[in-house]
Amino acid sequence: MISFIGGTGPEGRGLALRFALAGEKVFIGSRDSARGIEVAEKLNDLLHTNFIEGGGNEEASHADTIVIATPYQAQKDILQSLKPNLNHKTIINVIAPLTFSKSGIKAISVKDGSAALECQKILSNSLVVSAFNNISAHDLLKKDKKIDCDVIVCGNDPNSKKTVMNLAEKIHQVRSIDGGGLENSKYVEDLTALLLNINKIYNWHSSIKITS
Amino acid sequence: MISFIGGTGPEGRGLALRFALAGEKVFIGSRDSARGIEVAEKLNDLLHTNFIEGGGNEEASHADTIVIATPYQAQKDILQSLKPNLNHKTIINVIAPLTFSKSGIKAISVKDGSAALECQKILSNSLVVSAFNNISAHDLLKKDKKIDCDVIVCGNDPNSKKTVMNLAEKIHQVRSIDGGGLENSKYVEDLTALLLNINKIYNWHSSIKITS
Repeated sequence: MISFIGGTGPEGRGLALRFALAGEKVFIGSRDSARGIEVAEKLNDLLHTNFIEGGGNEEASHADTIVIATPYQAQKDILQSLKPNLNHKTIINVIAPLTFSKSGIKAISVKDGSAALECQKILSNSLVVSAFNNISAHDLLKKDKKIDCDVIVCGNDPNSKKTVMNLAEKIHQVRSIDGGGLENSKYVEDLTALLLNINKIYNWHSSIKITS
Repeated sequence: MISFIGGTGPEGRGLALRFALAGEKVFIGSRDSARGIEVAEKLNDLLHTNFIEGGGNEEASHADTIVIATPYQAQKDILQSLKPNLNHKTIINVIAPLTFSKSGIKAISVKDGSAALECQKILSNSLVVSAFNNISAHDLLKKDKKIDCDVIVCGNDPNSKKTVMNLAEKIHQVRSIDGGGLENSKYVEDLTALLLNINKIYNWHSSIKITS
């Protein structure tokens, strides 16, 4: 079971859809459990499956594999309240802290260095890995669209990182790239601001590939 | 004539080589004019051309198209001394401000926001465009290696940006991407730190492509 905390936004729904397409059981948690259930039902209808369940964030926090997909501004409060349930687990943080204004999209400067580092500071007994920050939610949600991109995965625990790299490659055509330690997540998170600005200029839904 | 200020480092040499390969006249400037001449001669020998000249930074600063390729730490002093010669010109900044240590490669936090914004602040009467920050110097310098990547170009003046986007595509197989205003250069500069960490992990010489 892959469980989403704050999973009703575009990135959470998109990843949930793709993991369900890969045959994984998924749980979509929300602050409003009725909303979690509603989103899960809609995704099941879209996929003609019953792989996706929904409910509250507290219920979501009991799974083995947890994805944090809250808005950045909500991360701190939600994680502090769920911390006891998240100890010693691999926690996948997909948050890119951004502000949107008429002049463009900007990365927020996070006091702890990045959303992932803030998450690790709060969940000091968990194994935080950042991933999926750059992948286009728009494309994830179009179930027939091929996702031809790389997912850069940053984390300090090699086993947790490997688990998340394998999970990412369950999405058809995705390649995982080891992005090093969690401190490098900042570069991946901030890159999302650049990609969204490029999207505005070209009317794209961009992601990235590393060439070598 | 494409002229490099601080052009004897790997990125300057690599870009000079590629522009000469594309048939452009190039000038490699250095604080030590003898070193500029020496580097130019070596590149001419490698390419069997005489397209590349070398000399001092002051001489370099008289060209119409100027590339700033100094180490980040040297940018301020060099640009302040050459400012009168750079007024009203398109200035291409390729600098990614980085620190290297045993624990990895990190982006330096620049007071003015990025190397490109610092450059624009100093050269207040010039049209600064950032580009080429992510392209692998190692690959640029291998003259038979295909450079299959995107160059993200950020700048506030549309005409200057277009000029630099066209220049980048003189490198065979490179695609230019409009990265928006100069304030977005920070994301492109910092991405270089991520790519260099990935290089260490995989023993690659990575660049990026935007997928859409």
